Amino acid sequence: MNKQILLDSRPEGLPTSSTWKFQSVEIPEPKDGEVLIRQHYISLDPAMRGWLRDVKSYIEPVAIGSVMRAGTVGEVIKANNHPKYKVGDFLSGWGGVQQYSLTDGKGYFKVDPTTAPLPKYIGVLGMPGMTAYFGILNVGELKSGDIVLVSGAAGAVGSLVGQIAKIKGCRVVGIAGGKDKCDYLVNELGFDAAIDYKTENIYSGLKKHCPEGIDVYFDNVGGEMLDAALAKLRMHGRIVICGAISQYNNTGKVQGPSNYMSLLVNRGTMRGMVVFDYVKQYGEAVADYSKWLQEGKIKTKEDIYEGIENFHETFLRLFSGEKLGKLILKVIE
Amino acid sequence: MNKQILLDSRPEGLPTSSTWKFQSVEIPEPKDGEVLIRQHYISLDPAMRGWLRDVKSYIEPVAIGSVMRAGTVGEVIKANNHPKYKVGDFLSGWGGVQQYSLTDGKGYFKVDPTTAPLPKYIGVLGMPGMTAYFGILNVGELKSGDIVLVSGAAGAVGSLVGQIAKIKGCRVVGIAGGKDKCDYLVNELGFDAAIDYKTENIYSGLKKHCPEGIDVYFDNVGGEMLDAALAKLRMHGRIVICGAISQYNNTGKVQGPSNYMSLLVNRGTMRGMVVFDYVKQYGEAVADYSKWLQEGKIKTKEDIYEGIENFHETFLRLFSGEKLGKLILKVIE
Repeated sequence: MNKQILLDSRPEGLPTSSTWKFQSVEIPEPKDGEVLIRQHYISLDPAMRGWLRDVKSYIEPVAIGSVMRAGTVGEVIKANNHPKYKVGDFLSGWGGVQQYSLTDGKGYFKVDPTTAPLPKYIGVLGMPGMTAYFGILNVGELKSGDIVLVSGAAGAVGSLVGQIAKIKGCRVVGIAGGKDKCDYLVNELGFDAAIDYKTENIYSGLKKHCPEGIDVYFDNVGGEMLDAALAKLRMHGRIVICGAISQYNNTGKVQGPSNYMSLLVNRGTMRGMVVFDYVKQYGEAVADYSKWLQEGKIKTKEDIYEGIENFHETFLRLFSGEKLGKLILKVIE
Repeated sequence: MNKQILLDSRPEGLPTSSTWKFQSVEIPEPKDGEVLIRQHYISLDPAMRGWLRDVKSYIEPVAIGSVMRAGTVGEVIKANNHPKYKVGDFLSGWGGVQQYSLTDGKGYFKVDPTTAPLPKYIGVLGMPGMTAYFGILNVGELKSGDIVLVSGAAGAVGSLVGQIAKIKGCRVVGIAGGKDKCDYLVNELGFDAAIDYKTENIYSGLKKHCPEGIDVYFDNVGGEMLDAALAKLRMHGRIVICGAISQYNNTGKVQGPSNYMSLLVNRGTMRGMVVFDYVKQYGEAVADYSKWLQEGKIKTKEDIYEGIENFHETFLRLFSGEKLGKLILKVIE
């Protein structure tokens, strides 16, 4: 049987168990030109919260009653005249929160489980990796010597942003929640400093660790962190708007950056990004990451939970912060 | 005697008469290398409100007890071995809110009262003109065919922004307060439409006049207008942060743009500007404006009040909106 998680109702605030519907259906058969993938891992990302909202955005909202959208990696177990993929191929793509997915291959790409463990293909070599790479380098216009601040720094995207900035010769400060995450950033990933927003005031943290200000702020969080970064922006500073996890479960108004006039004072730029715009350049990023991983310059952590039945509880870890690195759900049984 | 307006105390909220001190002092004598200017006109600009704040900004705050900073235009009536300027020259510069100013000439430039009336040198050919020109063309990266929205559209900067955008082949919508101003924008300046924020809801106005959205928003106002523009931003839209007059007299927190995540959805850019960065290019702008004025493609209105004693009441017109075009105080008696 194919276990699936469907969107059952649109949440107000934090998703609850009634947001989802669990069901078990027959494993489908591939039609002509299709393959059937048995999914091993499912990517859990903050962006998924946005896809639950019925508003115009960079992507269609997930429809009520359909399988929850998610990035996946798995193995082709049946193929029906597929022009490109055969049984035994491993594919990454948008399989959704289910154990088996049918596809004509559109939006999928082949991965090699002997080159890197499968979970990395939905982490550093997948959407979070691409987001970090093009976000900091293209949108953030990173230059050697920049002082870089990143929020959500121990997360899948933030941890890569910081490490790329270190590779490029920058001073890097991360904001994360809790001593363990902050220690991880500094001791394992080589960040210059970390601010624990759970115990430290961000403004004092920045005063201490970025006394000269910030050239690039990579924002995954929004809210107070965005305001604090604006307050410390240097001349011609850049702010990359990648996410706003602090605001995703707001039932009220989104907290806009009260300090945005710092953009005027400092001739700053705030720019939003969506990773899908860079699909044609993913190859460059994968090549760089592969090299950096091999050289030990990039480290990644995948935080893997098991069981599709645990999707809801695992998903909530994105917002409670109870995870380290890339959050992944293993759905193969 | 030289009548002067000094900053007497830093206002909370809207400046009051006790913000200023009026005094009458001896007309000073130019020292070696200086000239004495008899000022004709003083420029009143929203930016002056910012200069009253004791915070780090793009320019030093005006010190308590010193003559209020202001752009001026006047005539040299005494010169003491000045290498460049002589009696009878007309100079524009930072003379401050006073009738006579001494200067070594730094920051001043010569103007020709036979080419354009003196008030234009502190309007279209002065700071507001330069702000509009470099703001919309350089910071806003204006392209022919863009849909342009400008707030404070009947003001010194906004009215020029809109007219430049029309010259460059754009559709232009202005936001202004009151029917007279809106009529002026459409009937005299050639804007495609105007939204009267005093009687119309901005969101419905934008729905009506910018159904396809906005490519460039030139923001002089902030607050609700910035949020409405963000809500209608098109893909790769640009927002020029030039001012935030709705927030300048706030005693509470500045209202940050709650819709800023539209920058992500639409891959938008929000960028701040300060006109002083373009000093070296002012010549280009003056050349273009002179041509456009001659061809009748740019029209300007100077709203001139008289008497340095009326500085405070006149200055408040910037915030009440009771003026049309460039606000100027005539101080010559």
